[in-house]
Amino acid sequence: MQYKLADDRVREFERIFYPRSIALVGASKDNRKMGSRWAKALIDSGFNGPVYPVNPSGGEFFTAKVYSSLKAIPGPVDLVICCIPRAFVLDLLDDCAAKQVSAVHFFTAGFRETGEAQWIHIEEEMARRAQKGGFRIIGPNCIGASCPEHKLPYGASSVVGKPGPVGFISQSGGHAGKLMVIGLTRGIGFSKIASIGNCCDLGSADFLEYMAVDPKTNVVGLYLEGPRDIQRLFEVMRAASERKPVVVWKGGATEAGAKAASSHTGAMMASADLWTAALKQAGAIEVRGVDEMADTLLLFQRVGPVRKAHLGIICGLTGDGESEALLAADACAAFGIDVFPFTESTRRELLGLAGQASTTLISPSDLNQLSGILQALEQGIELVAADRRVDIIVVYENADTLLGLMTKEVADLINGVIVKASQKGSKPIIVVSPPGSLDLERLDIECRLSEAGIPVYPSMERAAKAIADVKRYYGCHAEAACPTLPWI
Amino acid sequence: MQYKLADDRVREFERIFYPRSIALVGASKDNRKMGSRWAKALIDSGFNGPVYPVNPSGGEFFTAKVYSSLKAIPGPVDLVICCIPRAFVLDLLDDCAAKQVSAVHFFTAGFRETGEAQWIHIEEEMARRAQKGGFRIIGPNCIGASCPEHKLPYGASSVVGKPGPVGFISQSGGHAGKLMVIGLTRGIGFSKIASIGNCCDLGSADFLEYMAVDPKTNVVGLYLEGPRDIQRLFEVMRAASERKPVVVWKGGATEAGAKAASSHTGAMMASADLWTAALKQAGAIEVRGVDEMADTLLLFQRVGPVRKAHLGIICGLTGDGESEALLAADACAAFGIDVFPFTESTRRELLGLAGQASTTLISPSDLNQLSGILQALEQGIELVAADRRVDIIVVYENADTLLGLMTKEVADLINGVIVKASQKGSKPIIVVSPPGSLDLERLDIECRLSEAGIPVYPSMERAAKAIADVKRYYGCHAEAACPTLPWI
Repeated sequence: MQYKLADDRVREFERIFYPRSIALVGASKDNRKMGSRWAKALIDSGFNGPVYPVNPSGGEFFTAKVYSSLKAIPGPVDLVICCIPRAFVLDLLDDCAAKQVSAVHFFTAGFRETGEAQWIHIEEEMARRAQKGGFRIIGPNCIGASCPEHKLPYGASSVVGKPGPVGFISQSGGHAGKLMVIGLTRGIGFSKIASIGNCCDLGSADFLEYMAVDPKTNVVGLYLEGPRDIQRLFEVMRAASERKPVVVWKGGATEAGAKAASSHTGAMMASADLWTAALKQAGAIEVRGVDEMADTLLLFQRVGPVRKAHLGIICGLTGDGESEALLAADACAAFGIDVFPFTESTRRELLGLAGQASTTLISPSDLNQLSGILQALEQGIELVAADRRVDIIVVYENADTLLGLMTKEVADLINGVIVKASQKGSKPIIVVSPPGSLDLERLDIECRLSEAGIPVYPSMERAAKAIADVKRYYGCHAEAACPTLPWI
Repeated sequence: MQYKLADDRVREFERIFYPRSIALVGASKDNRKMGSRWAKALIDSGFNGPVYPVNPSGGEFFTAKVYSSLKAIPGPVDLVICCIPRAFVLDLLDDCAAKQVSAVHFFTAGFRETGEAQWIHIEEEMARRAQKGGFRIIGPNCIGASCPEHKLPYGASSVVGKPGPVGFISQSGGHAGKLMVIGLTRGIGFSKIASIGNCCDLGSADFLEYMAVDPKTNVVGLYLEGPRDIQRLFEVMRAASERKPVVVWKGGATEAGAKAASSHTGAMMASADLWTAALKQAGAIEVRGVDEMADTLLLFQRVGPVRKAHLGIICGLTGDGESEALLAADACAAFGIDVFPFTESTRRELLGLAGQASTTLISPSDLNQLSGILQALEQGIELVAADRRVDIIVVYENADTLLGLMTKEVADLINGVIVKASQKGSKPIIVVSPPGSLDLERLDIECRLSEAGIPVYPSMERAAKAIADVKRYYGCHAEAACPTLPWI
């Protein structure tokens, strides 16, 4: 496969993610209905282009005129979002052809996933009519396309994700929504999100093909249940992986999960081992669960190409550095991350900084007793950053203890030192901040670090797993270095 | 080993966890010093008994008279908490003998952990003087004992954990503090917490021996780095495990971690595999990390004896139930938890409830489209609870989506249904509520469920791992059923 996608294929997807105008078929004044919330979401998000509400009963929606049919809309329509009952979709598709729309997204559900012959047949007919009519279908049974940069919100929740370099394609609307919301606080920014549903027309391979060439996308995440054309998907995945990282979570990878999935998609299901092997061959990075997906995408976004991933770990900010160092060493070992000793000169200088408490001459440096001594922390980070054996700096910050022993102001100053060091930019910094009490002050710390471009992880284990993923990818794809990936 | 511990041994520990009076040696008026914060913590916590500040400079601390020495205190002293510099500890121990105290806890550090011969020797001398003086030592280099029921706070942070049935013994003061704080929001209640430090006198085996017979403790957690008398520890662990669950996290279990640990304790370190095997033989449950520790202790506390652990999983409250069901099935399979199909009659009735969306006839029931329909949720939970194949009910609640699609009031009503069902008490209910946006409303939901006695987990994986731990324990220790363990 070539990297180049035909211009007309690219244009198809541009009309989906950057529509110039949208018709919302099934817009409703009844605010308990999805058609009402969706219309409101498009207005609230600040989408910059005409949104045409369509409902046979006409009238007005907020200040917008409601059109009685698609054909009644005066201007051209790029994207149709459909929330009407399934009984009416075939008629709508005829209207779409007449109106020469570019794409139709069906939130409407109740087709192939019901397992009922009648509705499977209608879904097949939908695909045929789209092909004949010269437009594409997203779905049915999905949340559809979102593009934060273009203010195209994710579904009816009126939330627009943070803009950024991550593309996400999902066979579950819920999982994609969860990832987007996690991204809001953890700083994962999205170029495009696509909830693709039953894939009667456009499938996961199609979306991946587009995101592989999309200049706004630097890393792609995929949540799969039962992809339809599995052979083509793996071909596209192999080619895409050579260009940028592809991170895959396969739902129903276990036998029990597969049994659950097969009942609603009827698609091919393979054993977990087979999937793992195939993903590896395709050069993709496998993750399990939405948290692992978020952890790994965040690191690709923030840290970019890392080949050796030797860590310099700074812990003991609030005392007990030795136990924190143990925890860090165990977590790194579990995921095959090497914790090399610092160079002799770094050790010597750190020892001078941290005094008696730093008799533990291990790589995770122990800054015990330094709490509040901002200058020493700053110097400590500088020393570790200057060590030629260190690729990534991890600061273990137990915010609960920090806030328990000190004021919020002192904690802010400490984080200010970390942010400043990160902005100097000689080496990427990751903060591990385990949750504990759910107080607002701690959340505020996390959010501020995230906003400053510093990836924050809730545990050493999760940070180590993500680092291992990034290291593995760039180890296999030396040429895939993506110099535009910013890590700040 | 017998379960019975000699009365005088029990009394030793009672003086530590339920001291009738405390002397704080090293109390200070300088609020940047630990001796000041510690004194304030004892006052703030509401400890019900005399607290005697001791400092050679005398004077007053808040309204309390400061005594110039331990011997100058008029009344008897059970527990001495020591924050003075290490140079003065031997003299203090002589005073302790003269004053006939029961125990001394040394927050003071800088002994064995420095690796310096001089200070190792002094630590050994401390133990000898305590033995000669007829009292016990906790530490040095630790946060010491806490007993929420007795308002004995954990260290100088003035936080007193929630009272409850969990005992915790830790070679890291930081990890124990983190667990206690996690407990505040997740509802883990503690009978006793002991940060035991260098263990020059009392060691992990001693504390475990006491907690094994303590009627207020139903489950014991242990964080170990390098226990001193490992053979005795495993003997005690085996006997304790027959009586109540013992959950162990071994820090430095990996080679890298062990290297980090050996530099400050010099204690025996074994490979991860050896530890795993030995813990299994001793009947203990192994966990890794503070989150896993919290997950498993919480379930022992709340759910108690469970042998089969067949789950009935309710998902799709906010739509997308099929993907949530897949996720649940995968997570259960990964940890060896069986997801049995419901009985035929349950299936039939659930189908009637959930309508078209529930064509997926798998055990994780899909209540898609039920959002807001409180009565249907209530009936759904009742149906699943009534199924004879179900031992534990898991409700997957995507609070972000819930709050995104509905108002907080509706979300509260939905959680009200879950709380009500849990209080009916026919079968234990667990809620899985994955974090996402960090907004206050979602945290409020989590805290309220926790306060209502419902264990809340951030992911299906973590719930499944904890369920597997509890199942394994009660599978091996049929006789250990602890009927006093409340699961509400």
